[in-house]
Amino acid sequence: MSFLVIGGDAAGMSAASRAKRNRPDMTVTVLEKTADVSYSACGMPYNIADPDRSIEDLVVRRAEVFREKQGIDLRTGINATAIDPANKTVTTQDSEGNESTVGYASLLVATGAAPVKPEIPGIDLPGVMVLKNLAQGRAMKQFIDQWAVKKTVIVGMGYIALEMCEALRDRGIAVDMVKPRQTFLPWMEGHLADQIKNEIASQGVGIHLGQTVQKIEKANGRLAVACTDLELEADLVLVAIGVRPVSDLAAAAGLQTSVKGAIAVDARQRTSEKNIYAAGDCADAFHVVTGQRTWIPLALRANRAGWAVADNVCGIKRRLAGVAGSAVFKVFDFQVARTGLNESEARAAGLEPASVVIKSRSRAHAHPGASDIWVYMVGDRGSGRLLGVQMVGHDGVAHRVHAPSVALHAHMTVEQFSLTDLGYAPPFGPTWDPMLTAANQLLKKL
Amino acid sequence: MSFLVIGGDAAGMSAASRAKRNRPDMTVTVLEKTADVSYSACGMPYNIADPDRSIEDLVVRRAEVFREKQGIDLRTGINATAIDPANKTVTTQDSEGNESTVGYASLLVATGAAPVKPEIPGIDLPGVMVLKNLAQGRAMKQFIDQWAVKKTVIVGMGYIALEMCEALRDRGIAVDMVKPRQTFLPWMEGHLADQIKNEIASQGVGIHLGQTVQKIEKANGRLAVACTDLELEADLVLVAIGVRPVSDLAAAAGLQTSVKGAIAVDARQRTSEKNIYAAGDCADAFHVVTGQRTWIPLALRANRAGWAVADNVCGIKRRLAGVAGSAVFKVFDFQVARTGLNESEARAAGLEPASVVIKSRSRAHAHPGASDIWVYMVGDRGSGRLLGVQMVGHDGVAHRVHAPSVALHAHMTVEQFSLTDLGYAPPFGPTWDPMLTAANQLLKKL
Repeated sequence: MSFLVIGGDAAGMSAASRAKRNRPDMTVTVLEKTADVSYSACGMPYNIADPDRSIEDLVVRRAEVFREKQGIDLRTGINATAIDPANKTVTTQDSEGNESTVGYASLLVATGAAPVKPEIPGIDLPGVMVLKNLAQGRAMKQFIDQWAVKKTVIVGMGYIALEMCEALRDRGIAVDMVKPRQTFLPWMEGHLADQIKNEIASQGVGIHLGQTVQKIEKANGRLAVACTDLELEADLVLVAIGVRPVSDLAAAAGLQTSVKGAIAVDARQRTSEKNIYAAGDCADAFHVVTGQRTWIPLALRANRAGWAVADNVCGIKRRLAGVAGSAVFKVFDFQVARTGLNESEARAAGLEPASVVIKSRSRAHAHPGASDIWVYMVGDRGSGRLLGVQMVGHDGVAHRVHAPSVALHAHMTVEQFSLTDLGYAPPFGPTWDPMLTAANQLLKKL
Repeated sequence: MSFLVIGGDAAGMSAASRAKRNRPDMTVTVLEKTADVSYSACGMPYNIADPDRSIEDLVVRRAEVFREKQGIDLRTGINATAIDPANKTVTTQDSEGNESTVGYASLLVATGAAPVKPEIPGIDLPGVMVLKNLAQGRAMKQFIDQWAVKKTVIVGMGYIALEMCEALRDRGIAVDMVKPRQTFLPWMEGHLADQIKNEIASQGVGIHLGQTVQKIEKANGRLAVACTDLELEADLVLVAIGVRPVSDLAAAAGLQTSVKGAIAVDARQRTSEKNIYAAGDCADAFHVVTGQRTWIPLALRANRAGWAVADNVCGIKRRLAGVAGSAVFKVFDFQVARTGLNESEARAAGLEPASVVIKSRSRAHAHPGASDIWVYMVGDRGSGRLLGVQMVGHDGVAHRVHAPSVALHAHMTVEQFSLTDLGYAPPFGPTWDPMLTAANQLLKKL
């Protein structure tokens, strides 16, 4: 019984570890092309924000521990170049170009996601960087220190872009952000998005919408970033316009792919090929609201899917629930949270959404220290079902959103959600939680 | 069409206001025996903590607003002394003893709860106080200022007792707490309860378990509190050993009562008498986990039940979901949260509970500023259902508990809960939320 894993990050190492725990007799081999395994990629912006912390703090478990304590045959610096499902083998290449072949009884493809890099002149200049793996984080932190970076341009305004914006400002580094579209956070309801945009602007960050980067050049010892009708100077350019699933290896072996090229899997993380599983940022999932395939690469799912693969490989049948697209992030003093669908996503899924935006408070009437909380809630006119929630506020937003996530899993209606018994005390919210106020308002529209 | 409400607090005023909104032509009369209506009773400890804030800040809406802007016939200082369901009348008495009779088409009994006072010598001495209504809060705040209170004894260790303990310590006032039983917070799992107990002790508060108060006397210009084998001195004694539903008026009129004497109501808040409703702290409710009648007097339910009564009175059929017993409170730097049943409550309801206690962290691996979060989770061996959750921690506990509350409403199993897609970012928790870690552990025991 041998279990081979391609990719030693969240999904891959979770699967390898759990398989060994399930079946200590099993031969478990992991092929990882970089030198790093098992680190908190999501922690990189917060680490980079603090010059006194080593990037190595983000390593959750070192390679030697996997090898020596857990008995996993972990091979770092090894690239998987081909999968042969018929013969159940994977071709590998080491850093010196030596090829080899590894057999398997069960295979997990956990090749993750890669940053999208636009094809523009200068994209490969030193100082033009992306941030996805630990090597990139290490390089960026070294670059900032070594060149005493004073001025940056961030291309893109998604989660990573916003978290890095905060990290760089924390270090006193100037930030300009550019993106081609005119809408800031297009997936977010406008009133909520405006709160975030104003917060970022108030931190002295330049937000330049409708600006496509056309080329990057070296000029006066800096980088000159030429946009649609704007020229910006920077010591460092972070390209954070999104990620794509790394599924080329899987696709070349004939594995079925789906949304945005992610590897198609069933509820047990099985691909279209027998004995081959996929998990993590390279794999798709079913959305709990629509029931349709979706691709939302996030850390919890990667870990959970890794576990599920290990169980299934070991003969413990494990089916996962779908994903709700629950995500939280922090931007300066704001917490931002979302789960489920916004109106346009709901319409695209054939639903008939209605929505409300409400502004409430983080604490009870007359309780000191209260701040605003904005809630956007979407329901379906046809079925009355809750479809999604977004929230923005300074306090109590990131954990509140867990409740509607659970409600989406339970296929609750807005009315059922509006009747839930949520805890209340003055330091933590109004008697009617902001989410209940939103649900009460939304009910009138359904 | 006339709607009469007895009791002008959360349930009563919510019902009166909503009935007027629903049907502006309806005659809505409220009888309130005190002078105060519509205030945040839960906010009293926080207000008392701050000598610079007026207790009147807690008034959400003044009586004149209800009368003049909303057209409600609000009669303060009027006591309802008898209900005659056959003739659909209520007998009232004003402060001068004048009796009168008010007729109704629909009646709401919203008489609330009253603090339990033990029958011990000295219980009525000046400086021995309870805290439930605004008049009592006002009296306590005045007493503290006027007599420059330095030393207090709190009898009881429930929510109010703990919140007042913090409030008094915030003002630099010494606190000793006493209770007859040996167990601190008996409804709370022991490891979690110990965290709170240690926190309170670290604030210099005397916690005296197994001490029954036997008498209170005046001595040396102070109060002497004689307990089982302890004598304490105080300028002020707060008696906070619990509350009971005020249902005497309803019971005398033949209305059916249930758990702890609360007025029995159905999902539409109807009592056993036609056209008579009950809502708020005097009424019972069905528990979402057990389906059995329960009595858990909390503010959100009172407001919600008031609304439901107004709708039902106005011909809009409104059924409420049950209660989950969700409660949160703050004790110094700790947040405490619970929802659903603990093991002994589950056993009492005929279930077969299994439980886990886990300790996790409030932030991701290597993220600065993390603190411990303790989670206690209870599931049913028979059905696999989630039965309850308790949590204690410095950060992110009060809002997290909304998620299992929703799960209890949805009758989720522990496995279903363990598979929910919860948002993650390093400043807000580990990749596996502490609640998911607890669910994963509990699954192994079911």
